This record gives sequence, structure tokens and C-alpha cells, in this order.
Amino acid sequence: MVDIIYLLEMTGIVAFAISGMIVARAKNMDPVGIFTIGFVTALGGGTLRDLMMDNHPLYWMKHQELPILILCIAVVFSYWNRAHRIRESRIVLPDAIGLGIFSILGAQLALDLGHSLFIASLLGVMTGTFGGALRDILCNEVPYIFRKDQIYASISFAGCWVYFACQWLLDSEVTALTVGLLFIVIVRMAAVRFDIRLQRDPFQK
Amino acid sequence: MVDIIYLLEMTGIVAFAISGMIVARAKNMDPVGIFTIGFVTALGGGTLRDLMMDNHPLYWMKHQELPILILCIAVVFSYWNRAHRIRESRIVLPDAIGLGIFSILGAQLALDLGHSLFIASLLGVMTGTFGGALRDILCNEVPYIFRKDQIYASISFAGCWVYFACQWLLDSEVTALTVGLLFIVIVRMAAVRFDIRLQRDPFQK
Amino acid sequence: MVDIIYLLEMTGIVAFAISGMIVARAKNMDPVGIFTIGFVTALGGGTLRDLMMDNHPLYWMKHQELPILILCIAVVFSYWNRAHRIRESRIVLPDAIGLGIFSILGAQLALDLGHSLFIASLLGVMTGTFGGALRDILCNEVPYIFRKDQIYASISFAGCWVYFACQWLLDSEVTALTVGLLFIVIVRMAAVRFDIRLQRDPFQK
Repeated sequence: MVDIIYLLEMTGIVAFAISGMIVARAKNMDPVGIFTIGFVTALGGGTLRDLMMDNHPLYWMKHQELPILILCIAVVFSYWNRAHRIRESRIVLPDAIGLGIFSILGAQLALDLGHSLFIASLLGVMTGTFGGALRDILCNEVPYIFRKDQIYASISFAGCWVYFACQWLLDSEVTALTVGLLFIVIVRMAAVRFDIRLQRDPFQK
Repeated sequence: MVDIIYLLEMTGIVAFAISGMIVARAKNMDPVGIFTIGFVTALGGGTLRDLMMDNHPLYWMKHQELPILILCIAVVFSYWNRAHRIRESRIVLPDAIGLGIFSILGAQLALDLGHSLFIASLLGVMTGTFGGALRDILCNEVPYIFRKDQIYASISFAGCWVYFACQWLLDSEVTALTVGLLFIVIVRMAAVRFDIRLQRDPFQK
Repeated sequence: MVDIIYLLEMTGIVAFAISGMIVARAKNMDPVGIFTIGFVTALGGGTLRDLMMDNHPLYWMKHQELPILILCIAVVFSYWNRAHRIRESRIVLPDAIGLGIFSILGAQLALDLGHSLFIASLLGVMTGTFGGALRDILCNEVPYIFRKDQIYASISFAGCWVYFACQWLLDSEVTALTVGLLFIVIVRMAAVRFDIRLQRDPFQK
């Protein structure tokens, strides 16, 4: 169980790191910028979660293989000529897995520390979305979570509640995590595929 | 006493949340963006204060009615057609109350934790102004506290010292809080009304 | 020993504060903005370090002479007419000293708290560079550490490892600190002087 969670978390971190580096490279940043944006995108959400819940040491300080892994990816990304061929569309699936696993693990940590369901769902959303928001702010883009053409944070929020409901109904941690994660991944993929939105942009035809 | 403080704090939070949502709506954000900006504006200052002073759990985690209230306001704001008629000028008074109560309660918490008067006044200013600064940064505006046409942070700073002086002179917590709060609210309203500045802009006629 | 470190730290803080105020003044900010940017540039790195390592109270809360000093510099800077004659080129040396001392002291604190060398070097880089990054973000510039024409973070990272190597080889704290600091200062000055970069900008002739 722990191994599967760790593998899923690693998948999410790699996906978020790569999504950050793609944006950083598109902005023509140097290797340090590429590493920094990758690091911040992949580990920003978890760092905010740990700071807000006073959960020390931060998880990437305990698992130093995570920043080392991001450093290796950044070196490949900076000096490998064909890295620019990786399009953002290629990482929609791993990014969705990252969003799912981060949201649910963030919410679960909050529950473990005795917070209420509502607070836990907020912390789940923050853990899942903060890294990507930082990436967009640092790269001077309108953050993903605010764009009308994306329902990103809402899926994370709904997914946390699906997870809570399954925990309560099924009394099985593994099933609840699987259902919550699948919910987030599938709805996120469907939202990207079918262009689902919370509110139509009034200025768009 | 506690009830009055709680009511004032709630007023400030609602005012700050609405001020954030007005800006978010003007930027044409979706409901998630409107909630996020409202949340960050209303609770950002207190979160920074609690993190910097290692005061856990964060106050909005202890009082989950606060984020729930902000969520309700965001729903109304997003789907109620006439919300766009609320002009920023309508919230100058509640915003000033929020600035006052956040500044003074932030400074008082720092004193309670044994910090010096100067450090307490800095933390008061941060508590009072950080939410609005985050709102402006996230919405890509030049932050309020840096604009030459506003004396925002200075009033908060002066108000903290008025509060400290009253505490020392009057030996009554309630009177000191009332005087400090009134000072900030009145000076802030006067500054907006009469366009008072710290320094004239040399490029302006 | 402690006195020399404190003096070096003070030099770095003053240099960083002035570098922030120069940018703030160039952006035509008012005195509050000048103080805020100076404060954030000088103390931002150490605050991030202390928050991430749960090292409370924050160092500027323990040493209130530091924010008071920054306040005094901000007053001089705001009302002294000839302050605008201080060019950023004049503070390259003190800025390099600040980068060096902050990086090495940040890394050393992480080692003292039991973190690994790699994590310590990351925290050293964050301590040394975060203040300047915040300054650039708040003033709406592309952060220094991301610009292709600067190798800023890389020097800090390399300097931390030079410091670790000296600690291991020489078994003398003072010598290691001196060598690490000199390495960062000299390489930084050389990089500015001879325009050394990590990667040539492909779009530049």
C-alpha cells in the first residue's frame, strides 16, 4: 500500500516537474530557472500543506531523493535538444494523476491531524493546485486555476468529497483512495477532452 | 468583549473577501477564481501572522465557519447578476474596519507572545495589509500599499502605536482597542476622502 | 567569531536592503513601498529559511535592530534627494557579500538541524537568493535568478559545496567559512565583470 502511494506520488511529482520545465523552457529560461520552476511546481503544494499544518520537517527534506530526481530531470531538460518536442498535451494524464494523488493525500493528512472535513478538502485543493499556480505566477501567466477554460480546482475539491464519502461508506482506505483518484483523473481528462467549464465566458461566441 | 472582537473580525473578513471578489469579477474570473481571491484577501494576513509567529493551528482552521462563510459569499457573488453593481467605493468603510481590527489584533497577538513593541507593530501592519497585497499581486495590479495615491500601511503602523500608547496610558484593554480602531478607521476614511498622501508624485501636476 | 559573522550578516542585510530600495525608487514607489521592498529583499531569504526549518522565533524578531536599521535606511533613501545617484553597480560587492554569507549561514543552519548536505545546499541557495527574487517579483521584473545573463543561484550552490568540502578537509569552521565566502564573492564579481553565463542565449548574436 505504502509503495503504491509512494509510486503514485513520485509520478505526480515527475509530471508536475516536467509541466513546470516545459513552461520555463518556453519562456527561454536558463538551467537554473528550469530547475527552480520544476522544483516549485512539483513540491510547492506539499510545502504549503506542511507549513500550514506545522508538519515538520517538510516532506522533501525527509525524502531528499525527490529534489535530486528533479535536479536530474532539469539537467536532461536543459541540455537535451529534443526536450522542446515534449508538448504540454503529452503530460495531461500524469498531471491529472498528480492532481489526484496530491489532493487526496493532502486531505488525508489534514484528517489525520484532526481537522474537519471541510478544512481537509480545502487543504487537499491547496496541495493539489498550489504548485501549478506558483509556476504560472513565476512565469507571468494567468494562473491555470483562474482561467475560465479550465475546471481544475473544482475537480480537486469534488474529488476530496468523493474520497470522504467512500471512506465513510466503504470503510476501506484502499478502495476510497482508488475511487477518489480515479474520479479526479477521469473527470479531469474528460474536462480537457470535452472542454467542460463552470461558467461560460460571456464575451466568447 | 470576546464577542465584540469576533464580530468586528468577522466584519473585516467579510469586507476584505468582498473587496477581493469585486476585483476578481472585474478581471472576469470564474467562480473558483472569485472564491480563491476572496479567501486569500480575507485570510491571507492572518495566515502570514500565524505562520510567522508559529501560532498553530491557523485561525481559519480552528474557525471553519470563516472559510464556509467566504464560500457562500463567493457563490452569491458568482451567480447573482447584480453583484457587479457593488462598487469598490461601497466597501471603503468595512475595508477600513478590517484594516483596523486586523492590525490591532495582530499586534496584540505579537505582544502576547512576548515580542517587542516595534516587532508587534510590524506584525500588525503585515496582518492588516498582506491580504490586500496578495489580492493585487494575484490580479496583476500594482499593490495598494505601494501606490503613491494611498496611505494604507502607514495608517496601520500609526494605529498600532496609538493602541500601544493607550494601553500604557489608560490601562484598559477595551478603551485602547476602541481608540486604536477608531484612529485607523477615521484616518483611513479621511485619507480616501481628502486624498492625503505621504509624498507628492513629482510627475503629477 | 560570532561578531565577525554578525558584522558580515549586517553588511549583507544592508546591501540587500539598499539593492531593493534602488529598484523601488526607480519604480517611483512611495516611502512605504521603499521600506517594504527593502525589508523583503533583506529579510525574505532568512524568513523563508526559518519558516521551512521551523526555526522560531524568526531571526529578525529576535534581532529587532535589523528591521529598525532598515527603517532608518528607508527614511534616508526616501527623503534624501541624492539617493537616486546610487547606482545598482555600486552595490555589486556588498550584494555579493550578502549572497555569500546568507548562503553559507543558511546551509550551516540546515546542517545543525540534521539535514543532509544536498538539502543543506538547497536551503543555502534559497536563503541567499529568495530575497532578491521577491524584490524582482514585487517590482514586476523577470527575477534575477532566471535571467540568462546572470549566474546567481549556481554560484551560491557551488559555494555551499566548496564550504562543505573545506569543512570536511580542513576541520576548521572559520577557514571553511572564509574560503566558501571568498569563493562566492570572487566568482560572483568575476561573473559580473566578464559576463559569464551558464548557457548562451540562442536568440542573441
